[in-house]
Formats: sequence, structure tokens, C-alpha cells
Amino acid sequence: MADDKVLRVEAKKSENFSDWYVQVITRSGFIDYSDVSGCIVFKPHAYGTWQLITEAVDRAFKKDGVENSYFPMLIPEKLLQKEQDHLKGFIPEVAWVTHTGNTELDQKLAIRPTSETIMYSSYSKWIRSWRDLPLRYNQWNSVLRWEFKHPTPFIRSREFLWNEGHSAFATKEEAIAERERIIGIYLDTLQNYLALPGIVGRKSDTEKFAGAVETYSIEHIMPDGWAIQGPDHHFDGQNFSKAFDIKFLDKNEKTEYAWQTTYAITTRMLGIMVATHGDDKGLVIPPKVAYIQIVIVPIYRKDNQELVNKHASKLYEELREKFRTRIDDRSEYSPGFKFNEWELKGVPMRIEIGEKDIAANSVVLVRRDTGEKMQVKVADLSKSVESALERMHADMYKKAKESMASMIHVANNMEEFKKVLNEKGGIITSPWCGDAACELKIKEENGTKITNLPVEHPTVGDRCIYCGKEARLVANFARSY
Amino acid sequence: MADDKVLRVEAKKSENFSDWYVQVITRSGFIDYSDVSGCIVFKPHAYGTWQLITEAVDRAFKKDGVENSYFPMLIPEKLLQKEQDHLKGFIPEVAWVTHTGNTELDQKLAIRPTSETIMYSSYSKWIRSWRDLPLRYNQWNSVLRWEFKHPTPFIRSREFLWNEGHSAFATKEEAIAERERIIGIYLDTLQNYLALPGIVGRKSDTEKFAGAVETYSIEHIMPDGWAIQGPDHHFDGQNFSKAFDIKFLDKNEKTEYAWQTTYAITTRMLGIMVATHGDDKGLVIPPKVAYIQIVIVPIYRKDNQELVNKHASKLYEELREKFRTRIDDRSEYSPGFKFNEWELKGVPMRIEIGEKDIAANSVVLVRRDTGEKMQVKVADLSKSVESALERMHADMYKKAKESMASMIHVANNMEEFKKVLNEKGGIITSPWCGDAACELKIKEENGTKITNLPVEHPTVGDRCIYCGKEARLVANFARSY
Repeated sequence: MADDKVLRVEAKKSENFSDWYVQVITRSGFIDYSDVSGCIVFKPHAYGTWQLITEAVDRAFKKDGVENSYFPMLIPEKLLQKEQDHLKGFIPEVAWVTHTGNTELDQKLAIRPTSETIMYSSYSKWIRSWRDLPLRYNQWNSVLRWEFKHPTPFIRSREFLWNEGHSAFATKEEAIAERERIIGIYLDTLQNYLALPGIVGRKSDTEKFAGAVETYSIEHIMPDGWAIQGPDHHFDGQNFSKAFDIKFLDKNEKTEYAWQTTYAITTRMLGIMVATHGDDKGLVIPPKVAYIQIVIVPIYRKDNQELVNKHASKLYEELREKFRTRIDDRSEYSPGFKFNEWELKGVPMRIEIGEKDIAANSVVLVRRDTGEKMQVKVADLSKSVESALERMHADMYKKAKESMASMIHVANNMEEFKKVLNEKGGIITSPWCGDAACELKIKEENGTKITNLPVEHPTVGDRCIYCGKEARLVANFARSY
Repeated sequence: MADDKVLRVEAKKSENFSDWYVQVITRSGFIDYSDVSGCIVFKPHAYGTWQLITEAVDRAFKKDGVENSYFPMLIPEKLLQKEQDHLKGFIPEVAWVTHTGNTELDQKLAIRPTSETIMYSSYSKWIRSWRDLPLRYNQWNSVLRWEFKHPTPFIRSREFLWNEGHSAFATKEEAIAERERIIGIYLDTLQNYLALPGIVGRKSDTEKFAGAVETYSIEHIMPDGWAIQGPDHHFDGQNFSKAFDIKFLDKNEKTEYAWQTTYAITTRMLGIMVATHGDDKGLVIPPKVAYIQIVIVPIYRKDNQELVNKHASKLYEELREKFRTRIDDRSEYSPGFKFNEWELKGVPMRIEIGEKDIAANSVVLVRRDTGEKMQVKVADLSKSVESALERMHADMYKKAKESMASMIHVANNMEEFKKVLNEKGGIITSPWCGDAACELKIKEENGTKITNLPVEHPTVGDRCIYCGKEARLVANFARSY
């Protein structure tokens, strides 16, 4: 037997989250580091989960009328310079192509950190009349942001995968109305595929996207009590359409600038998924986005190996029609080794079948998240698996939601704020005057930023937590990735 | 009405293929040029077709056991240098990142022209034992090759999209056996999705992939009589495994180098599809890969607009369940304008519905490829559309196959060869001694290269067409893109 190379996670999630996180994603074979600092390799389970997320989001986008496109990955420097806020936000992190072969380029080219500039240069050619609007294009691609902060796989990677949606509308109202639909698609995907809850809200002006008028985000809380931003939607007003000259003749033959939006979901979600659901045995992947949903492990002795494998293969042929299924009939490993390996990889459901099970026309299902074992009849197998996976998904979401709720606290004064922050961490909901000066002071003194101004929140006091003046807004503060 | 901006293709495909090609892909809104020379924008119909191709190929790969992954787009210079033939093949076309933000990098980074080097660096860490084999990873991504030849959208683009499959096997036999399955998947996709035939064969040593032992390709013929390479599969032997130290302990505890393969299908296929099927009215997209399969055009006067639109919407709601359908109920354009626009875009099937049709409980189907009109009952609509699209696909494939066959000729001596080349173009099948010197001479004298050594071919003479010595091989010669 080759059981000597058993892999396990040594760090405890509750004791040392960051060591646990790195161990769980590398030892499970979810990712590997690469020869390029800050860039990772997505191995099949990670890429498979991302592919399932993109398929779900892509279907929903299409239903909403969004169309896919693909724009060049390189952006001429002069285009990047057209919108000043945008430029300032991205220029320090841009990777520049200066040579091709042995030839120096006349003008250096940026690898896209995001594609507003190259897309809107085309939009300005394509949009002439109200008949050309709305124009709602999306891309699925990879982008590069050469950040110098400590890179963490998925969470802060120099290259990541994402969708970038870029719309142009004839009216401000239509542009703003898109937000609820897109944020709705993201929320649905998080809840129904990734089993993740999130907090929707508007970003403060300090924290909004470089070039946006208004950013809405979905925020999450990691197990270590730090917040992390998920998907977002930006209302850009006419900032880019003015910089890129995206004009059209409206129905009254008047020239207007288009109203624009931008939105994205990224592979960072894989990190949040891992962090939220994983445990000390390894990954726990929600069934809907698991690259492999079911692994069948035949349990045999030498003298009944053929019999057991035959039955296991029959189950496999049946289940693979409906579920992403593997059979682990490797004879050089023990069942215990296999259990450990598939648990580490986070496969949602294990099916054990041995000679006794065959005699009883049943098998044993084992849920990855709870370890719950279920003896089920082979005749009902497909149905039993389906309902077990559905329950597992619902339970994982419920647990994640309760965990998130337990990490949100209200503070109405700075004393409470500091106490909650130091004792519990998580997100602190507080009244705020809306003044960036208070936001900055709180950040300087506590290392917290405003994650967003939540749409739904508990009741808070009516005085700004910092300056004591009238509170116009309710803000969520947190230490944030 | 806004019919003044009617777009049409002016060049004739049979008279001026290259003008026709550019007009048809730009005026139909299939692509646009970008601000980066040699890089294009894939607009929704083009990207949609590519997405449908990737979905078909991806399903087939997965069924064959291939797994998806994602590796960084940047490759350190030192990795690119590890395999010498490979390096020589790609280094003149590499785009180099030298700076990030304002900082010069210690080591320049290549944007992947292909990912052997960065992938195999990981493979060498992952592969230790025969148990780790076969390892068959694929990526869907974009690559950059800064060619200085005249760029043509899809056909020769500096950035293109593709799959790159990279396998490692324990034995040479397994590696070689993969070829037939992968080439089979590509052929199936071409035939059953793109309605394209192709010629399978081995590349000559001169023309094989940089780093390969043996390349097999699928070759096509463009309407101008020039050949063009489609998908390929490379058997790399142990070239890369030795350069990258990809070793494993076999079942006898002996250390061996892995045997490797590589394979790809690229967005060049969109260009071959456009060129093969398009006509003087515009694109003709095969139904299986058409972004929009059916467009419904209601035909009304002012006084029956509401009635006709109501019926058209009902058809739309029914058809969209099963087909990628649009309804064109824009009131500012005439039916004739709409017919022209959707024909230009190559949508396979048009449905016309007017008051007379409603009275007769029927509609008119119009096939894009032949213009054939069919009066069909509304009650049978879905079935009628399905069978019409199937017939259309079959007819398009048959026509493309006959056209290809008509452009392949046999020549047994150089006089015949030159005569065929100058009078007819296309591919010339000839006996060849196998000597690269003859291949080179033929190229120098005629501008033709060996496209491949076809697996299936007509009978040819037994003397090399150039030197007259014994012919060991049968080669296809052509002017080639």
C-alpha cells in the first residue's frame, strides 16, 4: 500500500486561520504556487468550481440581456490616461509590455487591470443613436494588478479571473435600475451555488471604485473576523462617456452622453468559499459548485474485490448520468486513505459500498460537512443523493448565515467600538455623519475602514460615532482584507 | 424610418476574397478592429460562436478524462529558455513585461505565447510516481504572438483564444494513442458544429511544432485556394520532460521520464467558418454554433401592428425555450431593412409573420444559406424549425465537403504541379521522397509548403515529384496562410 503519503491539514482553523487557509488550499491540491510571485495555478477542483460559477452567472446575465464579447488584453498607455481618477487608481499596479521579440514598442502597452478604457474607446465608435442603446457587453477574462501588498491565493492575487460587465444607457434611471438586477444575480449565485450570505450596501466615497459615481458591493466576513469585499456594481454616471466621447442622438435629435455602469465577480469568491465552509479536515465544497460531487469508495478484501467493484461500477454508471461522480477503485490505497484524501479535497458526498451493503441492497452515504452517515436503498439511490445534497447545501448556507450574523455588532460610541473590535472583531454597524474626515480618523485610530453602508441594518443611535454630530448614514466598519 | 444606414458587402467573394472577408466580418458587426494593432474585438455573435465551440469541445474533453486548469499568463524568461527548439520557435514573437507600475522587474516576464514551459515546471513538482499519471490538463485562455506578418482577423491575430491541452503519460504508446481521440474530438466538432470538413495528416519535420517529435494537423482550404491549418495534436516524446525534469517511479521502481502531448483548437476556426460558408449577402453561420439561430420579423402596417406583434411574441416565447431566438419588433425599421441586417449577420433562419399568415395559422421560414422559403403550420413550428435547421446544417457540410474535394488535385511531376497550382490553386497531392531538401526546393520555386502528409489520399505515382527518387510518402502541397 502507498498510504505513506497521507496528507492532512495541521493548523487549526480556529487557532491560526491564515496557516490553515494556505495548508487547506495547497495540500488538498486545490491550487499550487507558480514560478511567478503572486500568481497561482488553479488545479482542476478550483478551476472546475470557478467554471460552474461562471456558467450560473453567465446564464443569468444572458437572461437579463447582457451579451458576451472579448476585447484585447493589451491597452495602449494613451487610452489608460483618458480618465484621471481611473488612471490614478490603477497606474501603480499596471504591468507594462515594452518590447516584443527584440524590438522596443513605440508606445508601451498595459496588460488590462480592468477594461473600461479599451472597451469605451470602441463604444464611442459604435454608439451614435438612441437605437444603439442600451449596449450591455460583458467579458470573462483574466486581469493583472501588480499589487505589492502580501499576496494571498484568491484573496489578493496579482492575476485573477472575473467577469467585467460594462453597460451604456440612454438615461441615468436605466443605468441605476440595472444595479438591483445585477446585484440580485450575484446574491442569487452566492446563496444558491456557493452557499454564502453577504451584506449589500453602498461604498463610501473614499472607498468607491476609481472612476465611479457610486459603488455598491456585497461584503463578507472571514473566520478571522476581517471583512472582505465580494462582487460589486458601479454607477459611473457620465465620467467615462465624457472622457471617451460616448455620445448619441436621443429621440429628440439632441446629443447626449451615455450613462454607464460596470460590475464584476472574481475568483476571490473561491477564497471566501474555502474560508467560510472549510474545516480542520480540509475543504468543504458546496454541492452545486463541487467539481466532483460524489465519490464512490468500494470496500473490499482480496477475496471479494471483483464482486464489490462490479457493484460499485454499476452505481457509478447510474450516478454519473446525473451527478459529477468519481469512483475510487485504486487497489494500491486503503479505504481510510481514500476517505482522508476526498475529505481533504472537500467532495460533498462519499458513498461506501461493501459486501454487507450489497447483501442488503443498500449503500452508506456520508456527508462531508457534518460527517452524517445514511444507510440508503440502492433502488432509491439517485433520489436519496439528490435530497441529501440539497439538505447539505441548505444547512451550509444556514450555518454560514448564522456565523455571519454572529460577527456583526452595533456600536454607538467609540468606546463600544474599540471594545467590540478588540474582543470580537467582525463588522461593526455604527451611525455616521457622512464626513470623510471622521471616516479617516476612525481608520487611522483603529485600522478599520467602511466596508459599505448596508441597505439592511439594525437600529443605531442618531449621532455620528466619531464627531457626535447628526448621523445621516449607517456604516459598517471593519478591518478588511 | 431609419433605413438610410443600410449596410451591405460590396466586394464579391469570388472576385476579391480578401476584401470580401474583411467587409463581411466588420460590416456584419462580427468583429471590430481595436486600438492595438493586430488585436481585434470579438463582438457578441463572434464570441457567442466561440463559446458554443468551447462548450462542445469541453464536454468531449471531459468525457475523455481531460481536466481543466488555469496557469498564470506570465512566464519568467528563464523558464522559456529551458527547451531550445521551443525557445527558438517562439522568442521572436514574445511580448515582454519589463516594468510594473514604475518599477523595473528583476527578470522580464513573457506573456504566454503557449504554456508548455510554465505548466511543465509545475508538472515536474506534481509527478513523482506512476500513480500520478496520466496527468491530462487543459486550459481555455488567450495567448499572444507578436507576429510581424500582415495580421488578418482570426486568421493571423496577435492575440487569439484557444484551448491548450498538455498531457503526461507513463508510456509512449499511451501518449500516441491520445492523438486519435483528440483529433477525433476536433473533427467531430468541425463536422457537427461548424459544418467544416478537414484533411488529417502528419506534418513534415520542417513544419512540425517547435519542440514536438510529431505533429498531426487538420488542414482546410480557403475559397481563394490557399490552405490553412486548423486544430493540431503534438506528440512531444520526452523532449519537454527531459528539459523540465518530469520524472516518475514506474511500477518496477525505475525512474522514467514522462511522455507528453499537446493539442489546440483556436479562434482561427471562426475565420475558416466565415470564409467557407459566407456569401455575397454576408455571413452564413452554421445553426449549431449560431449565437442567434432564429430571428422573427413581424410584418405589419400601422393598422395591424398590435395584432401582428402579439402573435409574433407568442411564437417568440415558444421558440426561445428551445432555440436561441430574437424578435425584431423595432418599429423604426422596415422589414426589408431587417431582412438585410440579419442576413448580413448570418442568422440561420428567419421567420416572417404577417396578417395573412396569422389568418392561415402559418408562418414563413426562410433559410439563410439557400434563401429557401417554407410555409409551415404554427402548430408544428418547433418541429419544422428543428428539422429545417438540421437539413441546413447537413447541406452546408455537404457543400463545404464538395467544395474542398474540388480543390484537391493530384500531381506526379513538377510540370503538372505548376499547372495545377497556377490554374486552380488548392491542395496538390504528390509523391515525395521524404527529403527536406526537395520540400525546400519546391517551396522556394513555388511558394508552397507541405500542409501535411494526409492519412487518406488518392493514389499517386511512386517517384518523388521533385528528385524522382523512390517516394516514401504522400504529401499535400499548397500555398498556405
